[in-house]
Formats: sequence, C-alpha cells, structure tokens
Amino acid sequence: MTGAECLLRTLAANGIDTCFMNPGTSEMHFVAALERVPAVRGVLCLVEGVCSGAADGYGRMRGTPAATLLHLGPGLANALSNLHNARKARTPVVNIVGEHSTTHLRYDAPLTADIEAFARTVSSYVRVAKDAADVAHATAETIQAAIAPPGHVSTLIVPADLSWSDTNARVPVITAAKRAMPPAERIEEAARLAQLPGTALLLGGTTINERALAAAGRLAARTGVRVLADRNAQRISSGRGRFQPVTVPYFPEPALAVLAEVRNLILVETQAPVSFFGYPNTPSYLLPESSTVSVLAERSEDGTGALEALQDACGAQKCAIPLSPPAAVATPAAGPLTLDSVAATLVLRLPEGAILADEMVSAGAVVVPHLVHAAPHDRLPVTGGSIGQGLPVALGAACALPDRKVVALEADGSGMYTLQALWTMVRENLDVVTVIFANRRYQILEIEMRRTGASLARGAAYDAIDISRPPLDWVQLANGMGMPASRATTGAEFDAQFRAAMEERGPRLIEALLTA
Amino acid sequence: MTGAECLLRTLAANGIDTCFMNPGTSEMHFVAALERVPAVRGVLCLVEGVCSGAADGYGRMRGTPAATLLHLGPGLANALSNLHNARKARTPVVNIVGEHSTTHLRYDAPLTADIEAFARTVSSYVRVAKDAADVAHATAETIQAAIAPPGHVSTLIVPADLSWSDTNARVPVITAAKRAMPPAERIEEAARLAQLPGTALLLGGTTINERALAAAGRLAARTGVRVLADRNAQRISSGRGRFQPVTVPYFPEPALAVLAEVRNLILVETQAPVSFFGYPNTPSYLLPESSTVSVLAERSEDGTGALEALQDACGAQKCAIPLSPPAAVATPAAGPLTLDSVAATLVLRLPEGAILADEMVSAGAVVVPHLVHAAPHDRLPVTGGSIGQGLPVALGAACALPDRKVVALEADGSGMYTLQALWTMVRENLDVVTVIFANRRYQILEIEMRRTGASLARGAAYDAIDISRPPLDWVQLANGMGMPASRATTGAEFDAQFRAAMEERGPRLIEALLTA
Repeated sequence: MTGAECLLRTLAANGIDTCFMNPGTSEMHFVAALERVPAVRGVLCLVEGVCSGAADGYGRMRGTPAATLLHLGPGLANALSNLHNARKARTPVVNIVGEHSTTHLRYDAPLTADIEAFARTVSSYVRVAKDAADVAHATAETIQAAIAPPGHVSTLIVPADLSWSDTNARVPVITAAKRAMPPAERIEEAARLAQLPGTALLLGGTTINERALAAAGRLAARTGVRVLADRNAQRISSGRGRFQPVTVPYFPEPALAVLAEVRNLILVETQAPVSFFGYPNTPSYLLPESSTVSVLAERSEDGTGALEALQDACGAQKCAIPLSPPAAVATPAAGPLTLDSVAATLVLRLPEGAILADEMVSAGAVVVPHLVHAAPHDRLPVTGGSIGQGLPVALGAACALPDRKVVALEADGSGMYTLQALWTMVRENLDVVTVIFANRRYQILEIEMRRTGASLARGAAYDAIDISRPPLDWVQLANGMGMPASRATTGAEFDAQFRAAMEERGPRLIEALLTA
Repeated sequence: MTGAECLLRTLAANGIDTCFMNPGTSEMHFVAALERVPAVRGVLCLVEGVCSGAADGYGRMRGTPAATLLHLGPGLANALSNLHNARKARTPVVNIVGEHSTTHLRYDAPLTADIEAFARTVSSYVRVAKDAADVAHATAETIQAAIAPPGHVSTLIVPADLSWSDTNARVPVITAAKRAMPPAERIEEAARLAQLPGTALLLGGTTINERALAAAGRLAARTGVRVLADRNAQRISSGRGRFQPVTVPYFPEPALAVLAEVRNLILVETQAPVSFFGYPNTPSYLLPESSTVSVLAERSEDGTGALEALQDACGAQKCAIPLSPPAAVATPAAGPLTLDSVAATLVLRLPEGAILADEMVSAGAVVVPHLVHAAPHDRLPVTGGSIGQGLPVALGAACALPDRKVVALEADGSGMYTLQALWTMVRENLDVVTVIFANRRYQILEIEMRRTGASLARGAAYDAIDISRPPLDWVQLANGMGMPASRATTGAEFDAQFRAAMEERGPRLIEALLTA
C-alpha cells in the first residue's frame, strides 16, 4: 500500500472515521487512497478554517478526534484561528498536513514555507514523517498526543513522496488514554473547604455536563457551597431539570461583583477567572486578593468523577438537586423581532438533546439566560475568542452525532468569517438549522468602543466597525450555497419558521432580522 | 496624543494612507484615533485574509506599502496565507497587530497566543512595541523593514495599553530605500553571455514591466538572446505593442521542453526555475544540468535599470522591439460559453491600463496566451500559490489606483476562499469587475489527480474534490453582499455583460458559467 493508504488505515484502526479536508496537489495520493479505505469519510470544505472548526465541533461532541487534511503551510495557516479555539477548548484534533516531496523541499518553490513553524503556534505536538515506513508510527504518535487528556491539537506533516511511496508497515493500535482521578487528599481538602462560608466551586473543561452538574447541585444543597461555571468551557449542558451554576460574566465589572464574596475558590478542570480583555481601570485577575485558590481536578484529570467523589465525601448523595423555578412560558411576540422573542421561541421549540453551536456574541447576554428553561441540551460556546467558529463547529457536531438536532446560533459579523460552512452542511445533508442574529452591527465592538470613551458619532471611527452598508442578505448568501433560507422580521415569523425547521430534517437557515 | 494616534501619524508621515482592517477590542483605541488622523483611510474587511490580500494588491500596484490592522494572534492567523503570497511576491506590507495589554498578558485569557510565532512564519521583520514612547520608533522601524528592497512583510505588535497611553514622541520620517544598480562587472558578463548561442534571460520580480520588456526586446533583436519570464512574478505588463517574453510553463514536462536548449541562464530579479510541485518521475530543477546560471540583478537590485544598461552595453538602443503579429480579432461565439470565447471578449473589450487580478488557476492556460493581443494592461498573477488571493488583490489594487479599471479573473473554487472581498468592493464603491470562471470543478486538482494515476471515476476520491454539488450560485452570493451580478452562459451573453461592465464604473460580478 502507499504511505497515504497506510496513514488512512492507521486513522481508521484508531477510531478516526471523519476527515474534514481541503486537499491540494501534495495530498492527491491521500485523496486517491480514500477509495480503498472506506472507513474514513472525507468531508470536503471550501476553506480550511471550516475544516478545523468542524474538527473542533466533532471532537467536543464525540470526545474523540476527527482529522483534518490540509494543503501545505498556507492551508494550515487558514486553519489556525479555529485550531486556536480548539486548543483553548482542549479538543482533540489530528491535523494531517501535506508537504512538498523531500526532494522538492530544497528549492524555494512558491508554496514552500516553514510548516512546522505554522503548526507549533497551535499544536501541543508536531511530528514530521521521516519516510514511508515511518508513516504508520508517526500517525499513531500524533493520535496518541491528541487524545492525551485533556485533549490536544496534534499535527502530522507528511511529505508527498512518503504518500506516494509503498510501505508494508504494520498499522499500530493505540490504547485509549483515560483521565486519572485526583488523589484522595485533594478531595478531602475540597470537602473541608466546601463546609466553610465563602467557598465556591468553579466548573470548567468537560465538567459542565449532566453528571457533574447533578453532583455539584447536591453539594450546594448539602454544604451551601456556591457553584460557578466558566463561560468558555468546551461544552455546557443546560436546560430544564439540570442544576444551574452561575456563569462568570464576560465584562470585568459584573464578574468582579459575582466573585466579590469568594474566600476560597475550588477549581475543577479550569483556572482562576481572568477577564477576557485587559482594560485601563479594571483588574485582569477577578478574584479578591485575599481569596485562596485550590484545585480539585486539573484540566487533565477526571473532574466529573472528582465532583462525585466530593459529593460522597460530603454525604450529599441523597440531597435533592436544587432546580430553577420553571419560567412562565412566554409567547413569541407578534411585534418586531427582539432577542427576547427569539429566546422565547428557543425555549418553546428546541427539541430535547439539541446541540447549540453558540457564536451569538453580544446577543448571548440576552439569550443564554433564557436557555435554562429550554429542553435539556448541550451548548458549544466560544472558547478561544477567535470569531468564525460557530458555523464550522455546528457542521462538525452534526457529523459527529447525526441523530441529534444541531442549531447554530450565529451573529452576522462572525458568521461572515466562515460562511462557506453552509455549503458543506448542504453537501452532507446535515441536520443543522442556522439562526443568524442579524443586527447588522459589530455590536460587541460598539460596546467596547464606548468603553474607550470614544464617540460613536458617525465618523471615521464608527465607519471602521460599521457592517450595515451594504447590508448583508443572508437568505441570498445561503441560497447561493444551495441552502433553503428564510428571513424573519417579527417574533411570530421567527417562531413559525423555527418551528417548521425543528419539525423537518436537513440544513436550513433563518435570518433573524433584529430591530431592537 | 495616544500611542494609537502616534502610530497612525507615523504611518501617515511616511506615506501610508490606507489600512485594511478588521479590528477587535484590543485595537479600539486605534480605531478611535482614525477620527483624528484623516490622512489614513481605514478600509473594513469582513475577514483578515481579505485585509492581507488587499494589502498585497495595493503594494504590488503602488510599490509602497499599505497597512493592515489585525486583532491579536487569531486575526493575524487568518491573514497568514495571503501574507505568504505577499512574501513570495516581495510586496511591502506593514501589519499592525493588537496584543493584550502588558498587564493582561501573563494570564491565560482565551485570546492569548504567541503572536510573534504567528508573525514570524511570514514576516521578514517582527517588532513588539515596548512602551507608549517607543510606538513611533517601532512603527518607523517596521515601515523601514517593509520598504527595504525588494519589499517585505513586516509586522508590528502593539499591546493595548500602549495604544491607550499618552505619548508626545516625535513622529519619525524615513528616507525611502532605493534599489541599487548591480555592479558593472555583472552587466559586462551578461553582455558577453548574451552574444553566445543558447543564452536566455529570465525576467522576474518587478522586471516584467514596460521599460524592462522594451529593453529585453531590443536585446533579443540585437543579440538573439531568448527572453523568458516567471509566471509568478509580482506584476506582469502585457498587451499589444509590448514585447512578449516566453513564460515558463506550470507543469514540469512543458517547462523542461521550453528550457531544454538553454546553455546559459541570466537571472533578473529571480531564481533558477523549479517546478511548482515535485512529482515522482520528473525533476524539480528545470534547467539542463550542464547549463550555467548567472545573475544580472539580485531580487533587491534594479533589474529594470540593469536591463537598460545591458541593452546599451550590447548596442541595442536603437533596435526595433520585436512584436507579436496582431491576432485576427475573434468574434465572441454565440454558442455555449468557452474559455476561448471569454478570452476573445477580454481581447476586444479590456480598456487600456486595466489591472487584471489573475486567479484563474486552470483557466489561465487557455486565457493568458490570448491577453498578448489585448490593450496594454498589468496582470497580477498568483505568486505564493495559496488560493484565495484574487478577489482581495483586486480590491487592494483598486484602492491603490482608483482611476484604473480593475478586472478580477477568478476561479470559482479559489474565489470561495475569500468571497467576503466582494462586500468591501461594494462598500468602497470600487471600480472592480469580477469574472468568475465557473466550471464548478477544482479542475487543477482533477488534472493533478490524473497525474497520480488514480481513477477519476465517481467514487470517494473524486467526491473529495467535487465542488459541483450543491452548485454555487455566484449571482446570489454577490447580491447577498450588495453587488450587482449577472450570469453568462453563451459567448454573446458574456460579451454583452462584460462590455456593459467596462462602460460603467463601480463593482459588478459576472458568473461565466463554462460548459467546455
């Protein structure tokens, strides 16, 4: 077999069944080998940022990596910003990057670049395959590095001549890595702290899941410990019947207020909270200076198991989980479309088990708090803060779990970064409904601009962040990539369109044209 | 003034009047300062790959740099692939990249990344501003590095607190760098070689311009020297009345045939020819092993002046420039749209002085040879081979020289990489006509796939590079970004639409739906 086929067989033998790809000449033998290794599904994306964002969404929902196939340095370069997001999410991702053949590399051909340098910016592990016989091991080592807890971006660079050369190397099978339980002393110490006034747990990483939330809720009921949660965790379970931690707010002022009374913070798969950006007159570190910080579970450890052990250590096993009182079911308003009205529809119409890819940006401040009252669901929030992840993440999540409804909640400004993801959703006939929050503004930047004290009067400064002219027409953009789409301008229209979309299967887009 | 204002004033004082930008929170003070420094025009782009490609197009046409303004590591990451192209073109580009404030950097906030590592992958020079007082000098040094011949990608990283702090630093003004003439011995040696049979000149860099071509043509007439040209030079002047060098072909087999008789190759702002990719059974180095290679002008030297000096040294000043015989003017065909038919329209309708941003990819093999017969024009070809440069380069060229008609000749597959450029063309009301060569295929990859010996039967391999389903509708995509657009399916339709577009001003798109 060729080195390319050997690589694919190594992916398949280790459970990697999906490869988000945009190949070029140096990856043609890899593409040709897809014919002979049907266990790996190639998913074509029109730009590499879609590949990497999709691999992030896949890995966040499945817990095991997808692969990407990228063309040389520039193909990898286009994937980097969503790999940055995957890195911050601790999502396992295996990148396969083609390289010029080893005999061609010494010449300064147009596409020659330092691929390792590109790769190192976002990867925990970078490996260059040495020869065709090495491809199997190199692939296995790259996978091993990706799945090491908590999950890593891992990159394999494969010169084209290794792909086209023959090898009869044995395909290695890796033992899956498991998260370790933290040592007993840490659980004992957390149990002691949980009894003290002013103690809070901060959940992050993979621990905002149903089991972990249940344990945290019982602990709160038993000990009075406060339960806080990261807003940028890799995956957030929420909805009716689940315990609701307090999410640390985005801006430093309200975050400082939430954290003001914390005397002891216990970290579970996360770090002490810091603000998203630094500002002139607010601190970056958000805890009171006098508060202590301790660790229940490191990011690579089993935080969910640790919370259950802590629950047991505190004798909370049988406590009732405190739940939010059910909300009065709001009727989507007939008037102009507002965020509250969109949220009311989501609460009414989301099916149980929906996956929400959340890149609402400024709209999230209004919409997310409502979601507590929706059917139980998983939300994939912003992790690394690089915009353009929402649509690709939705695409990847739908490939990972095709039986669950995926809803992309996407701001118009960030959606434009990687709108090409819509095309692949159509091509693969994925069950993804995209809602575009079309306020026709970089609203988060307007808020940030106001914080600088600069005027938002219509001059050169405002103009530099004004995306209202020309207006973007998302119905035409979606139709242009073959996706059925509609526009909603009232709450009733949005509700009817979203309800219909929930009752059908397949890709669809709704432009929610917001007037308030 | 703030550090941000000081930075803008330093750009303005050194002739940088255009900044292609997609700012974020860490660049808000820079945006606010635009109000106070009207000499710098901020051009908003919806994704950073458009910013960097536009800066490349601007610099290639103007010869002086534009700036980009990018948001932290991920914003820079999105710009890298088109910066790779700019680097290979030796285009001067000044990147301004915001960074977290120095007090925020020590915390691992979501957007924290190693910006210098991202920057180094494509930049000749990377500078981090140290404090507010240092901003003026840091900016000047970054510009200086960008404009050092032959032209460089140069990157300045500015922590946010330096932007918002006050400074009263003097704004430095740089002395423009000039290309040096090569030493006399090199011209003498080239004059000697030019008389020998089997000698060829290879023009690259900035030397495929009107003056240099005239000198090369006279040299050919006088000495019989062959004149060859790079296909990936930063800018290629062509059209009626200009001497036509022989372009080195893309694939190694025809390139080897063109170069087979070369005994002595004289390089002018370029390197000895190598193939674009390496293949199993063809060499990467394309010259005969026995041929000698000498340098008339290094990339950083004045190749045009050197060619004129060589012309004089050979006594060719008064020779007539050999010109291609005029082509019989083809009438655009009435039948289904073909590449020859598109080319016939271009030959008939292109106005003198048009700028062609060429990312036709496979279509270029048919279209480019026709352009010899069009009105004199400048063509900006692919340089670094990273696709997604055509539309941004057209945008930047139109900002650089607003009085010249710009025509983007764009393949559908590569156009989808950075289609967001259309929006900025509309926003700035630029005189750019985009022609999409819609063959609904990654045709170059089909050719490359065939070269691997793999079957192109409709299976998993073909599917992985098939962009025909769903079909892309470029009229809707353009309309969705506010751009008037039409579709041509016959030669007559294309001719009528293109002719109308040449007679009007303003952005417009024509989808040339190719059937052959």
